Amino acid sequence: MTSRESDYFRALTAPRSVALVGASDDPTKLTARPQRFLTANGFTGKVFPINPTRDTVLGLPAFRSVLDVGEPIDFAYLMVGTERVIDAVRECGEAGVRVVSVLADGFAEAGEEGRKRQAELVETARRAGIFLIGPNSMGAVNTENGFVCTTNAAFRENNLRKGKLTVLSQSGSIIGTVLSRGHARGIGFSKFFSLGNEASVGIGELGLALVDDPSSEGFLLFIETLRDAPALAEFGRRAAELGKPVVAYVLGRSSEGQELAVSHTGALTGSSRAIASFLDAHGIRRADLFDTFLEAPAALARIRPAAGRSRDVTVVSTTGGGGAMVIDQLGIRGVGIGRCSAPARAALESAGIALGSGALVDVTLAGTRYDTMKKVLTTLMEDPATGMLVVAVGSSAQFNPELAVKPIIDSVREATAGAAPIVAIPIPHAPDSLELLRQGGVTAFGSIEAGAEAVAMMVAPVRQRESRASALPPAVASLIDEAASSSSVLDEVQSARIFAALGVPFPAHRLLPPGETGPAANGLEFPVVAKIVSPDLPHKSDAGAIRLGLRDEGALAAAMTEMREEVRRKVSGFRDNGTLVQEMRRGLGEALVGMTRDPLVGPILTVAAGGILAEIYEDAALCPAPITLDDAHRMIAEVKGFAPLRGYRGAPRGDLDALAGLMVSVSHLLADERIEEAELNPVMVLPEGQGVVAVDALIRISTPS
Amino acid sequence: MTSRESDYFRALTAPRSVALVGASDDPTKLTARPQRFLTANGFTGKVFPINPTRDTVLGLPAFRSVLDVGEPIDFAYLMVGTERVIDAVRECGEAGVRVVSVLADGFAEAGEEGRKRQAELVETARRAGIFLIGPNSMGAVNTENGFVCTTNAAFRENNLRKGKLTVLSQSGSIIGTVLSRGHARGIGFSKFFSLGNEASVGIGELGLALVDDPSSEGFLLFIETLRDAPALAEFGRRAAELGKPVVAYVLGRSSEGQELAVSHTGALTGSSRAIASFLDAHGIRRADLFDTFLEAPAALARIRPAAGRSRDVTVVSTTGGGGAMVIDQLGIRGVGIGRCSAPARAALESAGIALGSGALVDVTLAGTRYDTMKKVLTTLMEDPATGMLVVAVGSSAQFNPELAVKPIIDSVREATAGAAPIVAIPIPHAPDSLELLRQGGVTAFGSIEAGAEAVAMMVAPVRQRESRASALPPAVASLIDEAASSSSVLDEVQSARIFAALGVPFPAHRLLPPGETGPAANGLEFPVVAKIVSPDLPHKSDAGAIRLGLRDEGALAAAMTEMREEVRRKVSGFRDNGTLVQEMRRGLGEALVGMTRDPLVGPILTVAAGGILAEIYEDAALCPAPITLDDAHRMIAEVKGFAPLRGYRGAPRGDLDALAGLMVSVSHLLADERIEEAELNPVMVLPEGQGVVAVDALIRISTPS
Repeated sequence: MTSRESDYFRALTAPRSVALVGASDDPTKLTARPQRFLTANGFTGKVFPINPTRDTVLGLPAFRSVLDVGEPIDFAYLMVGTERVIDAVRECGEAGVRVVSVLADGFAEAGEEGRKRQAELVETARRAGIFLIGPNSMGAVNTENGFVCTTNAAFRENNLRKGKLTVLSQSGSIIGTVLSRGHARGIGFSKFFSLGNEASVGIGELGLALVDDPSSEGFLLFIETLRDAPALAEFGRRAAELGKPVVAYVLGRSSEGQELAVSHTGALTGSSRAIASFLDAHGIRRADLFDTFLEAPAALARIRPAAGRSRDVTVVSTTGGGGAMVIDQLGIRGVGIGRCSAPARAALESAGIALGSGALVDVTLAGTRYDTMKKVLTTLMEDPATGMLVVAVGSSAQFNPELAVKPIIDSVREATAGAAPIVAIPIPHAPDSLELLRQGGVTAFGSIEAGAEAVAMMVAPVRQRESRASALPPAVASLIDEAASSSSVLDEVQSARIFAALGVPFPAHRLLPPGETGPAANGLEFPVVAKIVSPDLPHKSDAGAIRLGLRDEGALAAAMTEMREEVRRKVSGFRDNGTLVQEMRRGLGEALVGMTRDPLVGPILTVAAGGILAEIYEDAALCPAPITLDDAHRMIAEVKGFAPLRGYRGAPRGDLDALAGLMVSVSHLLADERIEEAELNPVMVLPEGQGVVAVDALIRISTPS
Repeated sequence: MTSRESDYFRALTAPRSVALVGASDDPTKLTARPQRFLTANGFTGKVFPINPTRDTVLGLPAFRSVLDVGEPIDFAYLMVGTERVIDAVRECGEAGVRVVSVLADGFAEAGEEGRKRQAELVETARRAGIFLIGPNSMGAVNTENGFVCTTNAAFRENNLRKGKLTVLSQSGSIIGTVLSRGHARGIGFSKFFSLGNEASVGIGELGLALVDDPSSEGFLLFIETLRDAPALAEFGRRAAELGKPVVAYVLGRSSEGQELAVSHTGALTGSSRAIASFLDAHGIRRADLFDTFLEAPAALARIRPAAGRSRDVTVVSTTGGGGAMVIDQLGIRGVGIGRCSAPARAALESAGIALGSGALVDVTLAGTRYDTMKKVLTTLMEDPATGMLVVAVGSSAQFNPELAVKPIIDSVREATAGAAPIVAIPIPHAPDSLELLRQGGVTAFGSIEAGAEAVAMMVAPVRQRESRASALPPAVASLIDEAASSSSVLDEVQSARIFAALGVPFPAHRLLPPGETGPAANGLEFPVVAKIVSPDLPHKSDAGAIRLGLRDEGALAAAMTEMREEVRRKVSGFRDNGTLVQEMRRGLGEALVGMTRDPLVGPILTVAAGGILAEIYEDAALCPAPITLDDAHRMIAEVKGFAPLRGYRGAPRGDLDALAGLMVSVSHLLADERIEEAELNPVMVLPEGQGVVAVDALIRISTPS
């Protein structure tokens, strides 16, 4: 961290002085809250209420303006009306304020005028060298030093539970939700930031400013939209390197929610699948349940799969029904269920402990005794077959923690270095046992589903991704130069030429200028395919601009005439760049490889099985581009429709390795900023060892504006 | 209810006398719990501890045997060891006990010996006219009269919160989980039954015994497996008629969980999709989250969509982020989001209340005041555009219920008869507001996801199904008679004949005896399909026993010879019943219509799009057979792969009405107990108005054993 960065970090999290601009003397007012909370939490920095109409505010001397304070100000919270904000920021700049948080709304979310206002705000802050949070920000909180500078009512509790988690939220109300629901679950926090519109500083940039903070061992991100994807990617990578978990709760999983994000935040809409693939690729976990969002980060910070052990989870229970629920919930989240090894089983049986025969290690009600549980747990923790141990504690957790809760605590305390980690999930409502477990250093969950989701996160590998676009080969770049001068949608010949320069194989073909007729297939093997080349016919079949399976020159000549007649009827005035005659190729299956620029997360590579059904089932895998070969194989494995190519039901296997290689090469295409969209569809997947052949290509280029 | 039934009902829920067989005098023992709980809860019936070694047990006179009591006994809880159970039941029979609950394990879940023991137990109880609960039962509880006769430790609280919900659980430990987690959420219960192995009485039968109970306004079913599907169906129907919600939490949604249910309960395994379709068909809702299982039943009992209103839900919020979460969670569960009508909007705007423009009615922090909220709520409740109102209460719910919680309570209290119902979901942790809301008669949820899931249940129609198999036409029955005498797998000619007698159209065809050759297609239109008819070739393509697209007699004759050569090589000794020559038919799409007997829920009709991809995507709709035309249309709508037949992307529409009709006719086939399995695959779906044609059929018949 440079000294300038560390200066900002201090001003953000431990300011020596805070100006509350627009602070009210009426304690019932929203604008009185930050001062009340700072006082109640024993903040030791200086606090300067700024209020032009009063001499004192809630007992402190007030100033007319930040310019009148006459002392350095690290942090200013602006609670003035929308119209006053820009002037206030300018004054903060003159007064040398380092960090400014803005409460007001009426910016980018408020139409054209608001967007202009926001642009001016950002420019004003930039010129003044101010680190700007908001607008629409409910402030910043550090529980460790009483810096509770927020308008969120939830922070009025003056006994904030401290912890090592930091919350970054685009929604201001949600910082209070996380605080209150977290407290109710015994979870404490280090810092909270409400980022609002992220006019200047986004979640990614703030995350990067905090990622090295030793008090922030894990991060919770509440995400309505993404505005600084590259910084967020960098933050995710850095956090993964440091082993600090980052868990996101992302709005907009439904179309209704997505639509709302647009109207509520003035944000662009991206594809929720693109966002998901982006977060996954950069090591940021996504919580499905809000409880998981609250409970998983601390658990992930504490528990990791032990090195050298499998990722399977063994479930021990004192209650058949509860244990079965836990296994079921793990199973639907794709967690492998481990079973105890034969030697461990024998050791337990010789101690008179029978475990049943199924996947659940059920000690039963009769075995709910300290000694039995202790023996089972210590044996299984050392059992090489155990990757992780999840203990579903039955009814005894409610009133008799000495029976099954205590042995968990003792087993964890006495665990050897390489032992499998333990997670506890009491099945009944058992707040006292949860507290005992947590105080005893055991990771425990109050909710069965959130516990299962967190365990699934623990055993899934976190991706630490460093994939940078390599410069395109000069041949490719010059083909793009050439094409870019003419049209925004390239015809398939131009498109294919660019892909071919990247190493994508196409079938043997000939291009006939418009008007030229046979012998058209000169030198090609029949059957052939004929297509009219035109940038105006992106959907060839719909336009009637393609004929398949032509068996001889006669059929080809007839097809060329018929096609033109049909297309002329359907698409008046289309540009006719001639006829493409291709050898007809059939694979064992078809793939679609597409590249798009998501408005929020940028370049995305998509792979899907070809055909209309893959589209209907939304059976596609996405990954931020460029991708690695590992990414490509993982993506292919995600596509269910490739099952036949993987040998499903004895089908001959397709050359999916070649498909992966093709995906990697073309994923670099988006490194050229002019490429808006590119697609190979279909790519014919030939039998194993025989490669792939692309039979159609499309590239869209941004036109110089 | 007959007087005998009402006698049993009383003995089950309000026994005048209880025998505790195997009761311990040591209060720390499991077997002492029922007596302690009965006493602590002020049970006023007589309690007879049965213990051959003591004169008194925990202060009450003890008896050596139920036979020594000398007074009528309504209910006996047997807590003796496995080996003693059958004798004890016999003695209960001699003593005239009406209801017996058995704690011991070691029955059907314990291998062959256990299964024999269970059969003997059932027979003993049957002969004695005993209503038998268990074995593996943790007992029965009625909170209203202190009848807390259970070994589950959770019931040691002597201040059980009363309520109008009844819990039926196959797992004994889960009754304690439901009690403790329910109490923590302010939910009270009327009755609990732990059914264990359901050796005699299952959830369905017990539900039927309780469905008319005025204290049971809703039911929670914890289901590991199904053992009495017909009774459960009847219970579901009856409850739906009475407007009493039944919510099930079903284990075995993952393959791991399903496997476990088998080992844990000694149950058969059925398909989890078949179980789901069975519960849906009979009006039993399935909870995804355990919180929903706890919270939804009371809400469903109280709130129904108002008659004549839409099923859309309008979301009002004081917090943008929280409101967006609620909308997102409703959206992913398929709930339609309503918007306020223009007149309602105008009325609110003229009162100075702006609502924003998106799907969320966001009064914002500034509008979080009693008057504003009250005006918004009463206006929207009366707005005809509102089907139901969900209020996401922001941070004020935590400390200032007077701002946004109080107006909800008042609006609900003052609501007119036809007003839209309200549900509240506080976004922060706000137990006091939840309690206020509940005491004020407002349905409120502590969990956002469970709230959304419950609201989705409220607005989804509940199916009240009465679909009985009609007798098969005599022609069909006699064809089955004939076929059943020969083979268990019918060949396609026999199979098609049965389907054809039910009205299923097949293409024109001829059957050639083995050895007969051309002119084979005499009178059929080319191209034709040729297949070898044999009960030994269920997978024709794999065996090489089918040839498509034969264009003339020559091709047909050659195909008949080639096929036989190929099949002979692949399936030695296959029975050759001749050659079926069919006109070749192509549809716009293909469907599979299958009928199976699920081991748990019985006859099931399945419809899927044809082809391997539909299989890979598990894209099928199931429904208990026989089905109605409504069922058929709903099932077809569920199958995504039929999208092209519905006109997706301008594709020509298929005759899905004809497909629905076919499904209904064939769904009655399983009325004949001998039919084990039947399938039409593929059924060609022709263009709208042109019907469907089945081109292959298969029927498997149970052989007389």
